[in-house]
Amino acid sequence: MATVKLWSDAEAEADPRVRAVFADIRATRGSDFINNFWRGLANDPGLLERTWTSLKTVMGPGSLDPLTKELVYIAVSIANGCPYCIHSHTAAAGAKGLTPEQHGEFLAVVGMANQTNALVNGMQIPVDAAFKVGES
Amino acid sequence: MATVKLWSDAEAEADPRVRAVFADIRATRGSDFINNFWRGLANDPGLLERTWTSLKTVMGPGSLDPLTKELVYIAVSIANGCPYCIHSHTAAAGAKGLTPEQHGEFLAVVGMANQTNALVNGMQIPVDAAFKVGES
Amino acid sequence: MATVKLWSDAEAEADPRVRAVFADIRATRGSDFINNFWRGLANDPGLLERTWTSLKTVMGPGSLDPLTKELVYIAVSIANGCPYCIHSHTAAAGAKGLTPEQHGEFLAVVGMANQTNALVNGMQIPVDAAFKVGES
Amino acid sequence: MATVKLWSDAEAEADPRVRAVFADIRATRGSDFINNFWRGLANDPGLLERTWTSLKTVMGPGSLDPLTKELVYIAVSIANGCPYCIHSHTAAAGAKGLTPEQHGEFLAVVGMANQTNALVNGMQIPVDAAFKVGES
Amino acid sequence: MATVKLWSDAEAEADPRVRAVFADIRATRGSDFINNFWRGLANDPGLLERTWTSLKTVMGPGSLDPLTKELVYIAVSIANGCPYCIHSHTAAAGAKGLTPEQHGEFLAVVGMANQTNALVNGMQIPVDAAFKVGES
Amino acid sequence: MATVKLWSDAEAEADPRVRAVFADIRATRGSDFINNFWRGLANDPGLLERTWTSLKTVMGPGSLDPLTKELVYIAVSIANGCPYCIHSHTAAAGAKGLTPEQHGEFLAVVGMANQTNALVNGMQIPVDAAFKVGES
Repeated sequence: MATVKLWSDAEAEADPRVRAVFADIRATRGSDFINNFWRGLANDPGLLERTWTSLKTVMGPGSLDPLTKELVYIAVSIANGCPYCIHSHTAAAGAKGLTPEQHGEFLAVVGMANQTNALVNGMQIPVDAAFKVGES
Repeated sequence: MATVKLWSDAEAEADPRVRAVFADIRATRGSDFINNFWRGLANDPGLLERTWTSLKTVMGPGSLDPLTKELVYIAVSIANGCPYCIHSHTAAAGAKGLTPEQHGEFLAVVGMANQTNALVNGMQIPVDAAFKVGES
Repeated sequence: MATVKLWSDAEAEADPRVRAVFADIRATRGSDFINNFWRGLANDPGLLERTWTSLKTVMGPGSLDPLTKELVYIAVSIANGCPYCIHSHTAAAGAKGLTPEQHGEFLAVVGMANQTNALVNGMQIPVDAAFKVGES
Repeated sequence: MATVKLWSDAEAEADPRVRAVFADIRATRGSDFINNFWRGLANDPGLLERTWTSLKTVMGPGSLDPLTKELVYIAVSIANGCPYCIHSHTAAAGAKGLTPEQHGEFLAVVGMANQTNALVNGMQIPVDAAFKVGES
Repeated sequence: MATVKLWSDAEAEADPRVRAVFADIRATRGSDFINNFWRGLANDPGLLERTWTSLKTVMGPGSLDPLTKELVYIAVSIANGCPYCIHSHTAAAGAKGLTPEQHGEFLAVVGMANQTNALVNGMQIPVDAAFKVGES
Repeated sequence: MATVKLWSDAEAEADPRVRAVFADIRATRGSDFINNFWRGLANDPGLLERTWTSLKTVMGPGSLDPLTKELVYIAVSIANGCPYCIHSHTAAAGAKGLTPEQHGEFLAVVGMANQTNALVNGMQIPVDAAFKVGES
């Protein structure tokens, strides 16, 4: 159950901006499947356009490999507690070659990070001078 | 300012369990530097031992490359709002070869994930059947 | 499935403190409907009384308009990942006149804030002197 | 640096509602010290009154011992990343008898919980039927 | 201390993409002041451009008034624990007319939302059928 | 629906490391029941072993009583929004003697902490000198 309408293909077809984004998603992914996230964003065509354009750019070719980007995406989604995002990006990572062994190792890193984040915050550890490499 | 004492090298030297962990950290990292996190954990030698042992295992050689693991670690630390962890693991990622270009791209992915996590949660998007690949 | 009993009207009727709060909720809202949140809090009549009294005061007439307050409420609930709260306050915002256009714009602001929160935390941006307007 | 004014004793003295709350804090705690949190809340006397009244009730005598309540309070503050709250309630726990050994054990539990929360979320583990003990 | 370089005006001037964004920020805001957030993002000109373009669109004129948008922004930043964002957007809200009375009332709503989010999550309250107004 | 396979008893029996952990869980708890969390972790025997060993140590006998540890665990799980963890540890707390009265009081403390965390963050209250008891 969503708090907004999830647009059907027919509804998307009737709105030129939504239709264009859905077409680009299909062309970019080489698949007819449009997942629910985009069907919800369609309620605000401007938000749909901006989100898709940014996502395509950010997750597209660059200096980090695609699988690493998916793992970073899932890590954030786990920390934020977003079940939909965890499912969709774990599926995407699988499609990009994530092996069960890598998945286990990834989960171990995420768990470790959450644990030490809590230990650090609980002890309110001051940042070592050696880590202060940036400006200001 | 921490909520616990940060152990000096002299204090660590006087406790056999803390001394052993500090020695292993130095040997593993090939550096004399012990950052504040471990100096805080030293107040509970058992917690120090368990945390170091797990961290060494989880962040050690495996099926994911070391830089990817650091990026996942930073992503979690950003989502959890742990300044110390962000600083220490960004420094570690730099030591493992993170380029400024990769850092920018990484931040873009983290920002994107946080944004879409919020959009998904706000719309309460139901998980697509296509993503239900696991058991149960 | 809750971790506590959800009180029926009959059970509420049998406890004078719960009965009084339920009656005040109905009178204040001009509706017979008592949502599950209050039926769960009824297990601790003191907590039920304090929570309802505070909520009635905080969400009641004041210097901010009621719809703005609901949007702030939903924004917090999205960031905290509370599906129930997102559903109930999105419904409340709708009852107070939130249009689909405003809903989309609201979600865009929430998404933007989550994104820039992450970018700021990731870069550990120091607060500009110009923003230091408070005391201490 | 706060985003609001922190009220001095002289300023508090000039507002009857703030004066009354500050007097009750001092009487309840048997100390002249008023920490900054209350000096910030004084900008909204109604919020100050409601927050103090609730806190006094919730943290006062009941079925859980005072130290347990402080530990629960710190655990939440760590998970939420609130440095002020971690400092103030760790100090309060110390005043209520928290030993260094208990502090270490407490931190270990908090760290463990954060780790397993992440593992569970990452794997999207379904709730076992055996845990469904509540109603609805 | 940031984890990235904060670009000076001279450095920004030397990069055409950064120079263009900084110029647009100044023109849009009618002020010469460029806050640190943008000086950090300048390390990745593409991320700088996308973030500024989105922010200008999302926070610009629309169906919600500008002050409401700032309050939503601060609410998210508080829940996420982003001190920089809280400072910068509280300053922005002040510039858009937020009164101290409204600020107090806003904080009370944010506090209330965080409290009830926790109570709801703790009790795992199921969503009432009456709130299921969306599709799917 | 999980993102990983949940191992059956037959599958666990066929892997010596998983079998050994499951046997120790059963022996330690004096019950044949293995909850889904462990069945998911079984996909990575090393992660399963480390997590179980740590959990057994951390939640075992020590200087804090078992019920207090469970309450701290639930508090973290509520703040992190982990439904599974809230259910499983609320059940565990019940098995360790948590009364309905204590549960209500616990929830009140958790709600209060979340509320004041938000108020403190929103006001960006500086830490009182009196609370600076640690080193560094």
